[in-house]
This record gives sequence, structure tokens and C-alpha cells, in this order.
Amino acid sequence: MAGKGILYGLGTGPGDPELVTRKAWRLIEEASVIAYPSAEGGDSFARSIIAEAIAPDVIEIEMPVPMVSGRAPAQAIYDEGASAIRSHLEDGRDVVVLCEGDPLFYGSFMYLLARLRDDFETQIIPGVTSMTACAAAHNHALVARSDVLTVLPGTLDDDALTARIHDTDAVVIMKIGRHLGRLRDLLMRLGLAEQALYVSHASLPHEKALPLSQAPDQAPYFSMILLYKGNDPWI
Amino acid sequence: MAGKGILYGLGTGPGDPELVTRKAWRLIEEASVIAYPSAEGGDSFARSIIAEAIAPDVIEIEMPVPMVSGRAPAQAIYDEGASAIRSHLEDGRDVVVLCEGDPLFYGSFMYLLARLRDDFETQIIPGVTSMTACAAAHNHALVARSDVLTVLPGTLDDDALTARIHDTDAVVIMKIGRHLGRLRDLLMRLGLAEQALYVSHASLPHEKALPLSQAPDQAPYFSMILLYKGNDPWI
Repeated sequence: MAGKGILYGLGTGPGDPELVTRKAWRLIEEASVIAYPSAEGGDSFARSIIAEAIAPDVIEIEMPVPMVSGRAPAQAIYDEGASAIRSHLEDGRDVVVLCEGDPLFYGSFMYLLARLRDDFETQIIPGVTSMTACAAAHNHALVARSDVLTVLPGTLDDDALTARIHDTDAVVIMKIGRHLGRLRDLLMRLGLAEQALYVSHASLPHEKALPLSQAPDQAPYFSMILLYKGNDPWI
Repeated sequence: MAGKGILYGLGTGPGDPELVTRKAWRLIEEASVIAYPSAEGGDSFARSIIAEAIAPDVIEIEMPVPMVSGRAPAQAIYDEGASAIRSHLEDGRDVVVLCEGDPLFYGSFMYLLARLRDDFETQIIPGVTSMTACAAAHNHALVARSDVLTVLPGTLDDDALTARIHDTDAVVIMKIGRHLGRLRDLLMRLGLAEQALYVSHASLPHEKALPLSQAPDQAPYFSMILLYKGNDPWI
């Protein structure tokens, strides 16, 4: 890998530009090539978080990920992105890939890593996840002492969710979006709705931190449910 | 709460001073009172991470947590610490409490929060957890797409661990310490040892990132096992 550039997978944290790590900020300021996914036809959330740190003459590789079902269209975009990144790395230029939250925690960075890590030195810069930022929004322990924590995608069906919620102490439900109503009904049936917390856009000016019972009917993409099942965790 | 100081619970991240967020660093630089737990008779890991940012004339509240079993001795130390913090807050001085990793992710900060949050404005500054720093040490996705992630304390017995490992896609085992040998044997019996990764002191100069099969027989306190059970998560 001598003479080749380094591939950085860099977590930009949950949204507040001040919740970016010092290392990530420095690497972005020093970067000559950055790459990031964006919603097709829209902005890149990851880029918006660190926009202030980007040097004026930087080369930008945007990967407009199509918001359609099925994996093939997105994978084609990552193929293209990886190919553009590859040519910079081959020429000896480092490439910093921006990822909201942490690159290895439900991040799309893995698609680029899969395509490039065998051929180039890779370094991951971990970031603050939305999960702990959501707990911070409520000033409530996410998980304590010897608790078991389970992170569940809201897309699972009710039976799968019920079994896993039964078997743990603290629960984070991600990817809730249009499933919010169903998830709230489920937690009510399980007698757990009272303890459940809702957060959207954690750490951003328009953050919402509410009891789940007061959450809106439709949840945005950047939202989460936190549930602490144990007794008061404060003692 | 007018005229009173603000209580900050501040995550210092996994160990590398550059993996502290910009916000945490700024708050420490500006702090006139900081508080932190330390191992009784030893250093404070949280303080060591941000030592460079501490102003020379800062007031420091050290809470030497006894390393003995049973909760009472530690709780007495948190009582004392909370009382010292309380008098600064009453006098209108902000207090920044340092916590390695994230304050609400298995953090001892909850003990102070429990004692103080009803009387003072509290703000949590989330930090990078050791969990994602350990995944970064291996350049390996912690969890991807619609996976279920389960975080388990290594102190659970084999049956409890087996049931939960069976029911999830990705596993983090924390608090492994003297349980490492037993945990490795268990994962071997479950046919999962090959996929398991070991990390200690993530992000520090003496970080060790090894396949679990090559891990030492005794794990230090700051160590973890990561297990990805799914198929190759890279596609």
C-alpha cells in the first residue's frame, strides 16, 4: 500500500457540529478529498454537520443514494463512489468519507469499506451515536450497571419485537419512521408505554424529546424510541 | 434554578484525547470546577484523557471509588461527591463531571444525576463509547442494516448469555475481566469463537485488537468482545 492514500471512515456524530470529535474535525480541515452520501436530489446530512470545517478547494465526491426499495440501485451508487474514491487513493491522495453518527454503527460506510479495504489502508474515526445523544436529550440513563441493552429496528414484526423486549433491560428502537403508531400500540399492550421516551433530531436546534405518549403520529427518519424496563436506575 | 450553576455530565470518549468532542473540550477549558471518579488510590482515567484542557486554577473534586464488592462504600463516596458539587452549584458555579465514554452508557454519572437533577439544571454532553471505538479498532461493522444488537455484561451466567446470543445478530460483551476464559469456552461451544473479536484499551497507544482465539487469558477492565453472527455484512 506504499504510496497510496489512506481511506478514512469518519463519524460526524448526531448533528450538532460541536459533537464532532477533535480528530474528525482536524482530518476534515486537512482533507483534500471528501466523500459522502446524500439523499437523492437533496442535501447530505453528514456534510452539513461539518460544513464549517471544509477547506475551500477540497474535491467532493457525492453519492446520491436513491430512496427506493431494493438494494441494487443504492449498490450501483456505492460502486460508482468507490471507483471515484479508488482513483484518488491510487494517486496517493487520502480520502475522508463522512458518516453521520458512527461509521460502523448501522452506517452505510460498510459498503465502501467492503469495496476498498483489501486494497488500501483504512482508518475509522468513531463518532457519537444518535443513541447516546437521544439519551442525553432526556437526561436519562440509556443503560446502567449490569443491564442488558438491545437495539432493535422498528421494522421487525410485533412478535419478534415482543420476544426481544421481554428478554432485556433496556431497549432502543431505531428506524421507526412510519412504524411509530404500531410501535406505540405494541408498547401499550405490553404495559411499557409509560416508560418509553421519544426523540427526534437529537442535538439539533429542532430536537424533540417527549414521552412516547406525546410523540407525533409520523416520525421522521432521524428519530428513536428509548425504553428503560428496570426499576428506577438511579440508585 | 435562577442563579444556580449548571451540572454538566460530560463524556470524555474511549481514551484518545482527540476522540473528545469539540463541545466537551471547550466546556473543560472554560470550567472552573470539575469532578471525576478515580480508582481508589489511583488515577482517574477520565481526567487523564482531558488533562491537557484543564485550566491551571480549576477546582477539582475527586471521588475515589473503592474497588470492593457491595454498593454501599461506593454510594457513600457519591454522597460525598454530590454534596461537594451541590455547594458549588448553589453558589452559582457550573460543575463539569467527567465520565469516560458516554455518561449515560453504563456510566457512574447516573449516581450523581440521581442526587442532583431535581435541584439543578443538567446538561449531558454525549461521548464516543468504547463499543464503537472497539469496532473501529478492527475495521469491522459493529452492526449493519436491520440487525439486532445486544450488549451483554460478561458477568451473566452461561445459560443467560447463550439464550441472548442465540436471539440476536450482533453481540457486544462488556465487563469481561476475569470471565474471559469462560466466555471464550462458551463461544467455542456455540461454534462462534471464530467470528469473535477481542479489543482492549481501544484508541489508546497500547490498544490490542485480536481475534478472540489469540486474546490473553486475563482481560483488563477496559476490554470487550465483539461478535458478528450474520453472514458477511459487507454486501
